[in-house]
Amino acid sequence: MTLLDPLFGWEAVNSLFSDRRRIQGMLDFEGALARAEACVSVIPVAAADVIGAKCRAELFDIDSLARDAALAGNAAIPLVRHLTGLVGETDAEAARFVHWGATSQDAIDTGFILQLRDALDIIEPELARLADASADLARRYRAAPLAGRTWMQQALPLTLGLKFAGWLDAIDRHRERLAEARSRALVVQLGGAVGTLASLGERGIEVAEALGRELRLAVPATPWHSHRDRVGEIATVLGLVTGTLGKIAGDIALHMQTEVAEIFEPAAEGRGGSSTMPQKRNPVAAAVVLAAALRVPPLVGAMLAAMVQEQERGLGGWHAEWEVLPEILRLSAGALHHLTESVTGLEIDTEKMKENLDLTRGLIFAEAVQMVLGQKLGRLAAHDRVAAACKRALTEKQHLRDVLAGDTELAAHLRKAELDRLFDPVQYLGVTERLIDRVLEAHSRFGAATAQRRGEAGR
Amino acid sequence: MTLLDPLFGWEAVNSLFSDRRRIQGMLDFEGALARAEACVSVIPVAAADVIGAKCRAELFDIDSLARDAALAGNAAIPLVRHLTGLVGETDAEAARFVHWGATSQDAIDTGFILQLRDALDIIEPELARLADASADLARRYRAAPLAGRTWMQQALPLTLGLKFAGWLDAIDRHRERLAEARSRALVVQLGGAVGTLASLGERGIEVAEALGRELRLAVPATPWHSHRDRVGEIATVLGLVTGTLGKIAGDIALHMQTEVAEIFEPAAEGRGGSSTMPQKRNPVAAAVVLAAALRVPPLVGAMLAAMVQEQERGLGGWHAEWEVLPEILRLSAGALHHLTESVTGLEIDTEKMKENLDLTRGLIFAEAVQMVLGQKLGRLAAHDRVAAACKRALTEKQHLRDVLAGDTELAAHLRKAELDRLFDPVQYLGVTERLIDRVLEAHSRFGAATAQRRGEAGR
Amino acid sequence: MTLLDPLFGWEAVNSLFSDRRRIQGMLDFEGALARAEACVSVIPVAAADVIGAKCRAELFDIDSLARDAALAGNAAIPLVRHLTGLVGETDAEAARFVHWGATSQDAIDTGFILQLRDALDIIEPELARLADASADLARRYRAAPLAGRTWMQQALPLTLGLKFAGWLDAIDRHRERLAEARSRALVVQLGGAVGTLASLGERGIEVAEALGRELRLAVPATPWHSHRDRVGEIATVLGLVTGTLGKIAGDIALHMQTEVAEIFEPAAEGRGGSSTMPQKRNPVAAAVVLAAALRVPPLVGAMLAAMVQEQERGLGGWHAEWEVLPEILRLSAGALHHLTESVTGLEIDTEKMKENLDLTRGLIFAEAVQMVLGQKLGRLAAHDRVAAACKRALTEKQHLRDVLAGDTELAAHLRKAELDRLFDPVQYLGVTERLIDRVLEAHSRFGAATAQRRGEAGR
Amino acid sequence: MTLLDPLFGWEAVNSLFSDRRRIQGMLDFEGALARAEACVSVIPVAAADVIGAKCRAELFDIDSLARDAALAGNAAIPLVRHLTGLVGETDAEAARFVHWGATSQDAIDTGFILQLRDALDIIEPELARLADASADLARRYRAAPLAGRTWMQQALPLTLGLKFAGWLDAIDRHRERLAEARSRALVVQLGGAVGTLASLGERGIEVAEALGRELRLAVPATPWHSHRDRVGEIATVLGLVTGTLGKIAGDIALHMQTEVAEIFEPAAEGRGGSSTMPQKRNPVAAAVVLAAALRVPPLVGAMLAAMVQEQERGLGGWHAEWEVLPEILRLSAGALHHLTESVTGLEIDTEKMKENLDLTRGLIFAEAVQMVLGQKLGRLAAHDRVAAACKRALTEKQHLRDVLAGDTELAAHLRKAELDRLFDPVQYLGVTERLIDRVLEAHSRFGAATAQRRGEAGR
Repeated sequence: MTLLDPLFGWEAVNSLFSDRRRIQGMLDFEGALARAEACVSVIPVAAADVIGAKCRAELFDIDSLARDAALAGNAAIPLVRHLTGLVGETDAEAARFVHWGATSQDAIDTGFILQLRDALDIIEPELARLADASADLARRYRAAPLAGRTWMQQALPLTLGLKFAGWLDAIDRHRERLAEARSRALVVQLGGAVGTLASLGERGIEVAEALGRELRLAVPATPWHSHRDRVGEIATVLGLVTGTLGKIAGDIALHMQTEVAEIFEPAAEGRGGSSTMPQKRNPVAAAVVLAAALRVPPLVGAMLAAMVQEQERGLGGWHAEWEVLPEILRLSAGALHHLTESVTGLEIDTEKMKENLDLTRGLIFAEAVQMVLGQKLGRLAAHDRVAAACKRALTEKQHLRDVLAGDTELAAHLRKAELDRLFDPVQYLGVTERLIDRVLEAHSRFGAATAQRRGEAGR
Repeated sequence: MTLLDPLFGWEAVNSLFSDRRRIQGMLDFEGALARAEACVSVIPVAAADVIGAKCRAELFDIDSLARDAALAGNAAIPLVRHLTGLVGETDAEAARFVHWGATSQDAIDTGFILQLRDALDIIEPELARLADASADLARRYRAAPLAGRTWMQQALPLTLGLKFAGWLDAIDRHRERLAEARSRALVVQLGGAVGTLASLGERGIEVAEALGRELRLAVPATPWHSHRDRVGEIATVLGLVTGTLGKIAGDIALHMQTEVAEIFEPAAEGRGGSSTMPQKRNPVAAAVVLAAALRVPPLVGAMLAAMVQEQERGLGGWHAEWEVLPEILRLSAGALHHLTESVTGLEIDTEKMKENLDLTRGLIFAEAVQMVLGQKLGRLAAHDRVAAACKRALTEKQHLRDVLAGDTELAAHLRKAELDRLFDPVQYLGVTERLIDRVLEAHSRFGAATAQRRGEAGR
Repeated sequence: MTLLDPLFGWEAVNSLFSDRRRIQGMLDFEGALARAEACVSVIPVAAADVIGAKCRAELFDIDSLARDAALAGNAAIPLVRHLTGLVGETDAEAARFVHWGATSQDAIDTGFILQLRDALDIIEPELARLADASADLARRYRAAPLAGRTWMQQALPLTLGLKFAGWLDAIDRHRERLAEARSRALVVQLGGAVGTLASLGERGIEVAEALGRELRLAVPATPWHSHRDRVGEIATVLGLVTGTLGKIAGDIALHMQTEVAEIFEPAAEGRGGSSTMPQKRNPVAAAVVLAAALRVPPLVGAMLAAMVQEQERGLGGWHAEWEVLPEILRLSAGALHHLTESVTGLEIDTEKMKENLDLTRGLIFAEAVQMVLGQKLGRLAAHDRVAAACKRALTEKQHLRDVLAGDTELAAHLRKAELDRLFDPVQYLGVTERLIDRVLEAHSRFGAATAQRRGEAGR
Repeated sequence: MTLLDPLFGWEAVNSLFSDRRRIQGMLDFEGALARAEACVSVIPVAAADVIGAKCRAELFDIDSLARDAALAGNAAIPLVRHLTGLVGETDAEAARFVHWGATSQDAIDTGFILQLRDALDIIEPELARLADASADLARRYRAAPLAGRTWMQQALPLTLGLKFAGWLDAIDRHRERLAEARSRALVVQLGGAVGTLASLGERGIEVAEALGRELRLAVPATPWHSHRDRVGEIATVLGLVTGTLGKIAGDIALHMQTEVAEIFEPAAEGRGGSSTMPQKRNPVAAAVVLAAALRVPPLVGAMLAAMVQEQERGLGGWHAEWEVLPEILRLSAGALHHLTESVTGLEIDTEKMKENLDLTRGLIFAEAVQMVLGQKLGRLAAHDRVAAACKRALTEKQHLRDVLAGDTELAAHLRKAELDRLFDPVQYLGVTERLIDRVLEAHSRFGAATAQRRGEAGR
């Protein structure tokens, strides 16, 4: 654990991308490759057994691998050499069959895909948890009026539930994308030096199929050494997810401002305190998520730029992926987890929400007034008329309602009962609750479909 | 047309993102909105007719709109004002109903979605054309030996067909992604100021549904003013596509080098000439595509970073999209078209490919030798043995075959016939042709599925 | 003028990067090259005269050049051909000497440097105007108390003048950077095909020196065709400038929020109005600047990534610059101009600033209390004690002052007069005014030094 | 040391950005702050002594700080708390004065600036070493002919020395930039919570000045908590440096291709070997540097985007810097070191360089021919004539010289002696050697100026 890991990351996912796990991913490939080759009689079963027994990361010295990797240009080359040495100590015959027919990229890519699967198995349920938490909030606050804000200015009322429904709708779209990207990304890499599997003669495809069964990974039509769209897509989907997380976090921070004070991150001992201002309660989760929303997009750009990989294996582009994609996973998973923790414990001050709706002395209801007048005077005339009233309300620091009531010309159009109705936020919410229902229904359908798909997949 | 448009873009797509078309997109929204509202009796049919008649971009002065947009902060505000004026000249009553119930973002977003649909309707078939051209090449060169290169060094032989199959496989994955992203992105935006459709009272959803029918766009569960993953996803998929285009272009440029000279962009009068070096034939398409592969990834990053949009409408983030996403479309479509033109006319020198396979004096067959020896001596021992022979071949500028033939110890393991076989490229291609077949079969299935889906969609 | 140019850009700079100006830039190079070569007797003076007379952009058809550029791979190749044709119509002999000894990159790069100089000549004074406006504001509001905010929460008081001084200090640093980058970037490009000036024989350097005199540009030690740090640096400095502009714009938007309402962009007819909410006054300049602050950083990244240019001329990287750097100039200059307009007309509500300082019921003075108590109880004990009082003030919705006054234990330490002083914002401003003075003094020195440097440079 | 640190980084710089060093940086601030405050009698000297004695990173538990940092939102808050505890164990009175008057950002920023200074003290001499190595190579190969390549095609000859001079010239510009950025960036951060130094009363500036003396850092006019151009500039300059490193590495990889084989990275035991292809010698340093050239630009973009920091302290933007800037330093320093090692040991095959010049059967001399003919026939006519001859040479696979010699019309213009001269590369190098001299002279002047500046600075 490094100093900033718990702040920016999430231990459950961070730990998947440790050096130890990276090495184990490659060793899982090597062990499975040996078993697969034994299974289709390309190498002896006995050799596969010995090799498998040595494919344990704790048998390897990271510092030594690290130094050799700097010379070799990747970590798989020394790893295979060390593994061959280890196997050879036990069984010189078996040592002949270590890494048989594979190239270092096969080990690195497949090893990474295994780490990626583990990460997605943690991220996807967390995303579901965030969706469910948003759904709960959407239900709970479906009718709680709140000032809607555009251009960071109060615009019209909505309900807090609709805001949460917007979060939910976006998150469920991301879950769909992630499922699609997963199905394209979680595949074996096995091609040998240039993707022909030449050193396995006629047996290459059989070995690949057996390897896929060993690792429970699909086998692609052809190796993908220098075609990086599979891993690139994972990066982009996580980039999209992080964008939504950042949007949510930014909103929480805005609502949590001293002057707004409507929604708060959950309080906790030692959380969000300042070293010098005892009164402060800082939006710590928002800061972390917003940092991720700044950092992940350029990293996604790096993954896309790195797709220009030369010929049968990239020079530089492939290397760039090795730290960038884990970093995207670390940051997006960290942001997801910290935000989910925050969203599940949000503190909401509905009283303050109402107070804030009154801050503009009725100006927030100007559109409602304009729409009603529009039906009588035409949209544009109404717009100009109401704009004038608003200006007067602003200049004279009067309530818009009072300005309107005092306008004798408008008196014909707006009687007192109508004015009362116009300045009641719950009267100008349009189809807010029906929209919330639509989102919640889609969420239920999505949950049911996911459950069914998982049932069918038998996992 | 600007000076660099034909170079970097593709007229078919460039023209969709002209100012005129941007304005027409918004007007198409306004016209359809009026018809939809008339259809569900929210506004008079007569008003919708008058409004519809004025929704023609050529009636508007771009310079005037441009100046007003700078004050208003977006182009829809002055557009609606000008449209209202135009309608009012004909029918003051109808002018009341222009833009009824909508907000400027509704017009801008939906207008853009219409432009986007037109663009995808051009990009997707071009991507299919590139896939088909790659499939043709994969078939034609399935057995043509070529030096495979890793780290920009000759590694092992493959066939040129396998390289083309790799292109094809990646392109077909992108077609799948694009179809998925399309289905999520091509939706109506209609929410009114804060997404509640308040000014349409209880009729908001009916209007939205009618609008969707008018524009042949799906209606989302809820407006998505400040949730930008739909357009963000389009950006990311085009980013992935451009990455693959860049990979292909980079390979063409590498193969086209004076010293390699295996594959060439099609020649054409005035194409790729230099002002000072009459002998040159520059990879113009590759330059354009590689430029796009540098420019698009950061723009995708910009779209992702711009997703952090405040509350009910973003300040800055939304604005950033207006030029960035069209630029991504322009650059990726331009790169796609230029590369497709290049790939459909590639000139290939199979003789030079064979010559180059002999450049290393047999070293490219070292792995083949090593694999055969490996079965006799063990992988690692064979590796070291062959490495030593290679070193000698390099130092003494001998052919590896001759070095091996002169090694008395190895004579027992490698007889002449075996040596002949080992140094014949077509003998060390593993499952190359089967891999090509797998990709071609998947391409056929994909084509059939696409045709069926389109048939069902009735278009 | 395009639809969004006045919104995102600044006409004074936009116009410098039109197609017409791009062509004129290259023609200025060609004309000056001919004059320079005539001057050192490499070509006849008469030829230079004829060539110079044709180097006027209005004599060229942009559409035709655009189509040819797409084939040739850049715009200079067809431009030179068209220019040669034009000259030849007048004087076949002179036509022989068009573009003599140069390569297309010489024309494109030097032409761009001339456009860049014109742009910097506009941007630098505008940056000075923004600095001066900030200096005025810093002076004017040097003692106006304002709630300082960290983590988007009220923290401690400062004065508004200190905020403005912070802007000023950053802007003056950018002016320094821009001057340094300018001196490195504004140089001639002249190298011929591979940078040897081979076709000028022994005369290359003389020609380059004469060309530099013609264009008033420095002559670099050697051509820089594939070393792009000069233009890259301009991009990075504008990126830094835009970051600061975004910071300032973001602050204005935060201060302009309905609930904060302390600082406002200047009002203007038709400015920042909403199509549906007549009461709104949107921060239009802030939106534009924030959009630039999202868009420019990835473009700077693109310029840096594009620096990896192959051998003697880049394939793709160089091409990428042609639109990216003008776009950076357009966006940063637009942001600069819009923000300067905004800053020079800011409306400031010092009453509301004071009101907001009281929003926390005294909590914003907690640190002041803690510091005084710290001298008596120790920093940490004071921190805990004050934190407890703050908690109570929050929970019981009391003023912190009252909580403290009611704490009998603290009574010994904090008497009424001291409490009065502690809760007066002007009493807890530390060295605020001295810091403002330091910045203002540095600004004066910077202005004097700049004036002197300009005087010496005689421009 | 992590698995990929020696590959991508440079131990000398990596170690500066360990957790331990990050903590020590903050502790160095805290210790110096106490001493500075004692020096100006703000706190007791005895307290400063005790505090100073505890400011040793090894006294702190990283895991514990890490967990607390996740709650607090940054590492300084728990660090100060732990430090206060440690001091209090020894001297309760002294504990009162820990972190006196400072805010957590003061400790984090100044601590980082100290790490940055140490890093620059290592990077700048390494950059000088790369410059000197390039200068040596430029001298050594000043006259060695090499095919110049544009668009990745052979264009005209130059000398290898000119290529090296181009490297040198760019590197020396970076050294200049780094010196300028250094002088702006290496400053104290001390402002207290909102930059007013309020808790130090009237003594804030004196304390800051004393702190600057303690840490040998300049004191800025005003704190810069939310103005991040200083650190942003460091990022951009390193981005520019990395761009040049990538350009050089890319060139090496191109020259090292099997088919080109002109320039090679130094060979070393275990370096650049492949696990399956014993003949290969991979450009490992190039791969690492190219990976950095892909990764650093988006990180620079992230630093620029993160500059939009809210009010008196940023939410998210500041947090983003903490890992991004160290990563930029790690990657750029790693790339610099690996490339310097590579450049100082380059193996160069001047024979192969000559052979390659003959690959085009004389076409590479087409411009030389054209220039001579141009003086006789006019530039354009000569161009067309030579183009035709080139076409014939290509089609008929003849040497251009033979085609020209066989053209009776041209015989008048080109006699045998002239043809001999035209097809000798050393005859068409223009001012190559003078350009090399200009660069070398500038390098000498730069070195002398640097030495003098250092002498004056007395370090």
